[in-house]
Amino acid sequence: MIRFATPEEFSAALANLPTPDSDAITAARARQESLTKPAQSLGRLEEIALFMAGWQGREKPRAERIFAAVFAGNHGVAAQGVSAFPREVTAQMVANFRNGGAAINALSRACGAELEIVDLALDQPTADITQAPAMDEAECLEAINAGAATVPRDADLFFVGEMGIANTTPAAALSACCFGGDAMDWVGRGSGIDDAALARKIKAVNSALAKHASYCDSPFETLRRLGGREIAAMAGAILASRMQHIPMLLDGFICCAAIAPLAAAAPAITHHCLAAHCSAEGAHSRLLEHLGLDPLLHLEMRLGEGSGAAVAVQIVRSALAAHNEMATFTEASVASAL
Amino acid sequence: MIRFATPEEFSAALANLPTPDSDAITAARARQESLTKPAQSLGRLEEIALFMAGWQGREKPRAERIFAAVFAGNHGVAAQGVSAFPREVTAQMVANFRNGGAAINALSRACGAELEIVDLALDQPTADITQAPAMDEAECLEAINAGAATVPRDADLFFVGEMGIANTTPAAALSACCFGGDAMDWVGRGSGIDDAALARKIKAVNSALAKHASYCDSPFETLRRLGGREIAAMAGAILASRMQHIPMLLDGFICCAAIAPLAAAAPAITHHCLAAHCSAEGAHSRLLEHLGLDPLLHLEMRLGEGSGAAVAVQIVRSALAAHNEMATFTEASVASAL
Repeated sequence: MIRFATPEEFSAALANLPTPDSDAITAARARQESLTKPAQSLGRLEEIALFMAGWQGREKPRAERIFAAVFAGNHGVAAQGVSAFPREVTAQMVANFRNGGAAINALSRACGAELEIVDLALDQPTADITQAPAMDEAECLEAINAGAATVPRDADLFFVGEMGIANTTPAAALSACCFGGDAMDWVGRGSGIDDAALARKIKAVNSALAKHASYCDSPFETLRRLGGREIAAMAGAILASRMQHIPMLLDGFICCAAIAPLAAAAPAITHHCLAAHCSAEGAHSRLLEHLGLDPLLHLEMRLGEGSGAAVAVQIVRSALAAHNEMATFTEASVASAL
Repeated sequence: MIRFATPEEFSAALANLPTPDSDAITAARARQESLTKPAQSLGRLEEIALFMAGWQGREKPRAERIFAAVFAGNHGVAAQGVSAFPREVTAQMVANFRNGGAAINALSRACGAELEIVDLALDQPTADITQAPAMDEAECLEAINAGAATVPRDADLFFVGEMGIANTTPAAALSACCFGGDAMDWVGRGSGIDDAALARKIKAVNSALAKHASYCDSPFETLRRLGGREIAAMAGAILASRMQHIPMLLDGFICCAAIAPLAAAAPAITHHCLAAHCSAEGAHSRLLEHLGLDPLLHLEMRLGEGSGAAVAVQIVRSALAAHNEMATFTEASVASAL
């Protein structure tokens, strides 16, 4: 199990990212070209098969052992009136996750993913980012390691999700800090706020940026000042997954905001990730562009929890079924192109 | 089993289309609003759940009995040099389907669909549409009925696919005839033709339109003159499915060209259909717009066989898993929006 003892170890891991197995990609590409279909006619399904081959190091990658972790945290900035829901809902939804009644439970069952729920000090919200750094160093490191600890050895595919009332506010602040622009470019209606709450949210993000941006000189420091526990946990899980060569599906706006500080410092961090979907939260599309990711799905989802990633697992399964099970032109005695 | 004894019976069925169960839709919408998530946050998954509820007449629709039919036919117009593959490939691919080695076999297994293969007089290609109507009345009716016969009573969801070397040529002709424009607007590279074959294909479509368009005064006549056996079979299957209230996923360009003559006469024919995907064949996007359909997936696929529909089945499964299995706010004791 991967554990970062210090912020420096976290940075060092990010500076030393493993790369995919190019021999496996070459073998998988040759296999694709031999299958009974016009060249490239399965489009992005072929691209997914090569991606999975590279990270699993297998010509025929698998989608059997699929794992997900959902992290929950509470946010001091919720006190600024930036969410449509009261803060208690975070803990109530964690109970719903544990009882199997949330969207991510249904969607994980549908895609065959094993789901772990990790609640992170829900009775101790992070500090209000308009006033102070969200976490101290020990708190941030603990959250990162809680995320890293969920990465299962030998997973074929992994994804992470989150629950945290008000967490589109730190996500907007992280995005603006990492990729520029001001609050207006990154703030949206989240779970469904009205105009007054939207104005408070924009103000909160601008205050947080004014207070912290000039001190955000490393991915760790950016996560610590502007993030939250579930966001830091996702960042830890994404980096630890990379260190173990495990391919991931990235979920929506919060998940992509969690990888943003890592990507701003080390753009290659996204290479073991597929973007599962583009959320209806407007800033997600902008964030995906900055990350250089082309999302698999456009279903106007905006729930979080890992829900978009769970749906996209089905696309990966389809891609690998075609890649692994189809006959070649030779095996099937089918003539290839004229 | 539905059978059309005459072209007039086919037209009469199209003039008398059943509608979805509005009570079931109302009940399903009320259920969606009670589930533990922000309103509308599952985006198109919610829309799919209501669609399925309406056609199945159930507040909680099912995705257990999923069926697919793939139709194969040969085309006289292949003699004009409009395809990248020789005509023998149609029969070779049918053998591949029966042996379980094609993309649609792998993708049907992955999505849990039961697959039927129907080859339609492969040793008797249709007439070359640049010279004569593709089929006589009896041939067209027989193909339509072969399609109608595949619709399984009590299916939860159904889709159709096709194989037929050169069949993007009749599909382009059908699209132009039904929705206007000339050959240039509807012809693409199909399975991968070069510039010379593309020029021949454009010429063939223009010749076919010049010869037949002024006689295409009914959906049946349009299918008979410009279609093909597998295309007429898909049209028959789509209409027969509607008559039995069975929801469908439409596949790519050829499948949508098969419904085009029906939709030009009776636009509501699409109401029991979801567009599974938007193909990389350029004209498909234009055709979907004319049909008023917003595709679920954009994966740059262009294989046919029903492959895009098979992938989209997984999206429908996810939608129904969330709709049917999630807890309500009351059941889970979660506070709703402030």
